[in-house]
Amino acid sequence: MPNTIEHFVAADQVTPELAGQLIDRAEAFKNGAIANIELPTYAANLFFEASTRTHTSFEMAERKLGMTVLPFDPAHSSVTKGETLGDTLRTLAAIGVQVAVIRHPADDYYKPLIEEGLPLHLINAGDGAGQHPSQMMLDLMTIHEAFGHFKGLKVGIVGDLAHSRVARSDMQILTKLGASVAFSGPKAWYTDDFKAYGPYVPLKDLAPAVDVLMLLRVQLERLSDAEKAEFSAATYHARFGVTQSIYDSMQPRAIIMHPAPVNRDVELASNLVQASRSRIFDQMQNGVFMRMAMLELVCHSPLTDKGDFPHANADSKR
Amino acid sequence: MPNTIEHFVAADQVTPELAGQLIDRAEAFKNGAIANIELPTYAANLFFEASTRTHTSFEMAERKLGMTVLPFDPAHSSVTKGETLGDTLRTLAAIGVQVAVIRHPADDYYKPLIEEGLPLHLINAGDGAGQHPSQMMLDLMTIHEAFGHFKGLKVGIVGDLAHSRVARSDMQILTKLGASVAFSGPKAWYTDDFKAYGPYVPLKDLAPAVDVLMLLRVQLERLSDAEKAEFSAATYHARFGVTQSIYDSMQPRAIIMHPAPVNRDVELASNLVQASRSRIFDQMQNGVFMRMAMLELVCHSPLTDKGDFPHANADSKR
Amino acid sequence: MPNTIEHFVAADQVTPELAGQLIDRAEAFKNGAIANIELPTYAANLFFEASTRTHTSFEMAERKLGMTVLPFDPAHSSVTKGETLGDTLRTLAAIGVQVAVIRHPADDYYKPLIEEGLPLHLINAGDGAGQHPSQMMLDLMTIHEAFGHFKGLKVGIVGDLAHSRVARSDMQILTKLGASVAFSGPKAWYTDDFKAYGPYVPLKDLAPAVDVLMLLRVQLERLSDAEKAEFSAATYHARFGVTQSIYDSMQPRAIIMHPAPVNRDVELASNLVQASRSRIFDQMQNGVFMRMAMLELVCHSPLTDKGDFPHANADSKR
Repeated sequence: MPNTIEHFVAADQVTPELAGQLIDRAEAFKNGAIANIELPTYAANLFFEASTRTHTSFEMAERKLGMTVLPFDPAHSSVTKGETLGDTLRTLAAIGVQVAVIRHPADDYYKPLIEEGLPLHLINAGDGAGQHPSQMMLDLMTIHEAFGHFKGLKVGIVGDLAHSRVARSDMQILTKLGASVAFSGPKAWYTDDFKAYGPYVPLKDLAPAVDVLMLLRVQLERLSDAEKAEFSAATYHARFGVTQSIYDSMQPRAIIMHPAPVNRDVELASNLVQASRSRIFDQMQNGVFMRMAMLELVCHSPLTDKGDFPHANADSKR
Repeated sequence: MPNTIEHFVAADQVTPELAGQLIDRAEAFKNGAIANIELPTYAANLFFEASTRTHTSFEMAERKLGMTVLPFDPAHSSVTKGETLGDTLRTLAAIGVQVAVIRHPADDYYKPLIEEGLPLHLINAGDGAGQHPSQMMLDLMTIHEAFGHFKGLKVGIVGDLAHSRVARSDMQILTKLGASVAFSGPKAWYTDDFKAYGPYVPLKDLAPAVDVLMLLRVQLERLSDAEKAEFSAATYHARFGVTQSIYDSMQPRAIIMHPAPVNRDVELASNLVQASRSRIFDQMQNGVFMRMAMLELVCHSPLTDKGDFPHANADSKR
Repeated sequence: MPNTIEHFVAADQVTPELAGQLIDRAEAFKNGAIANIELPTYAANLFFEASTRTHTSFEMAERKLGMTVLPFDPAHSSVTKGETLGDTLRTLAAIGVQVAVIRHPADDYYKPLIEEGLPLHLINAGDGAGQHPSQMMLDLMTIHEAFGHFKGLKVGIVGDLAHSRVARSDMQILTKLGASVAFSGPKAWYTDDFKAYGPYVPLKDLAPAVDVLMLLRVQLERLSDAEKAEFSAATYHARFGVTQSIYDSMQPRAIIMHPAPVNRDVELASNLVQASRSRIFDQMQNGVFMRMAMLELVCHSPLTDKGDFPHANADSKR
């Protein structure tokens, strides 16, 4: 019996069983399966932070499912008049929107919304430094596509662990699915919460040992002054980036992943972005199909709070 | 014989007969009626002011009618190069747009446009402190939905009368339809033009007497310094807002309306926004169906100025 | 055998033969021909500069072809995170976008992109002061519509030659097609590259001699201080603009064109913008049909670089 997920907001909603179900469905979409969704279904994407990739990917997923997408520009919305996000969502629901995809800079923005009750489905497309479940799922799909399984795989996660919303959820689900993880990059970013999941290994030793090398984006704009002094783009690349020699040291079938946008010649040598090990553009391509699976899943899940509209007349309410 | 309205721009275009016709059609759409509109019909929404509700509502109405909606962002348009609004509209018409929905900060912006001739249908989605006919019509629909008629209804309008583009048109049409109106809120805002329509009544006396309590948004950002000194959010709420005790004093079938966005705990106690008397989200829901009726109406009305395109060839013009 | 054009970026890709093919196809679309394009086809329009006309025209052309258009707002994109335009386009291609229409302030922005390989079709909707092939093509279509041929036509090009991306490409193709060109406007703007194509003629002598008077927009905001001192809007109009008496001096079948937005009472007297000689709104209308022809053409042209996705699995790559 399939799982149901009313609002898809956090990585820890994904059990190994649900991960398998979603990967199967996304792979089916990639192979041309037809969506099973009642039409018209109306969606809106509320992106309070810049994101070409995630935004466009959800837009495409919605259209491939046959959904009708209402445009929503936060800069021109009533949010600028002080309206709460909850009231904006209830407004959209009253207007007829059935699924809202939201990216928001505040950690856990979705928690009070779900607590107070939402008459539409919510998918979290990223909250601050918190959750980004669709990225986690497309990473899993891309690994599954390369190897057909997770059990026994060795995954190296390299780079800006401290600021990454993806690193934590990926390491947790991968561990649950039977893979082992190890970490590399600037050692100061290998904090206690990562130590419970896997060891720190210098990149020159990690690269030849893994099946998957997951690079994390260095958010140069968020570094502390001390870090900025320590790492220029060039010194980061030399010490913690995938150079040609690191690339060549990897196992024959090993792959490289990155959530993008890539800082070329920082995390990865520019000429390797489209090299044969690279699954970076595959991740983007898979993201559309995975988001189709996630959107379809929430649309099939019953809503707890259906709102109190429509009222046919005043009497029917009392 | 149905009314025709080439451009729907002002509340005073709405006769009681047209109001009835539009309400019937909007209620039919709410009950699943199919639009009677030639497809493809191309629409564009030009919002020169922020508005989640009205903008998204028109977008939804257009899509539910089967229209194709062209995106238009004023911030990225040739208006920033000094093009007149009339030339922008003639451009859109030449490109194939048949209906333009416009919200603009300038009062009466539409008057010169219509005078000089427009080769597409115009719907006014709000002009400065002036007209907002679709809001008036969705208010009427929501009252009709609750009571089935207007004759003899008592309607209290409370709050920022002076700055409200809706208060004036609502009081005029309601009076024509046989309802009576009274006003409350800060007495300084009860200016002479309202005195001709109904008395000022303190809220504690008004609330128990009415069938409909229409709250108006306090635009705190537009208050004078003297007003800001007199009313904080909290003092406004205590003196002129709907508190639990005001709410409880109302008649059994009485309803509360608000054009939204609501300032929670200013015009209305936050916990009452979704209370059973509240028709706030019904108004939003009805707005989509009413806008469908308005869009359908203008599309059925012949255009006086069809533009001077297409020219099949140069000879045909001389 | 029809031409193929993988990426439509520059005016010099247009041979007289291709011009004829595109005009025929655009005229067929204007007469109701059905597009011959595989659906769904996904398009995105990336406008890094303001442009109502060109942007909306491409949006309309895509929809009339049945394409699905993904929204893309440069202000909210990863370009703001320093992503290269090439990586943005590869991302869009990975997500499933097949045609990108781009307007960009940098001259020749498309050259390195095509050199490094693009897995989607690119149409240049204007680059800096460089190319604007769809404007050139809609100009040709409008002239052809008026006269049925190009051979022997006399075309006067008037105004801001120096800053015009259209003047150069129009004069080159018109000459190839057998028309003759002459120039007018401020003489300082009649630089050496124009002298090879045609003489400078004062407007009062040029107007009675031509079949087509092409006015160029004066970009008042780009003038040098000396030019600003020399030409106010009014003095420009009196010396180089089409006044009523210039208009009246033209031959019976002669037409006036302007790429718009028009500076009313600068290049052209305001009351003549919609006069019978004016083909300004016809140009806009024709632009949609011409862009349909251009979009259809690139979609029928094979892509050299198909990208390296999809990868069915890791093995298939090695």
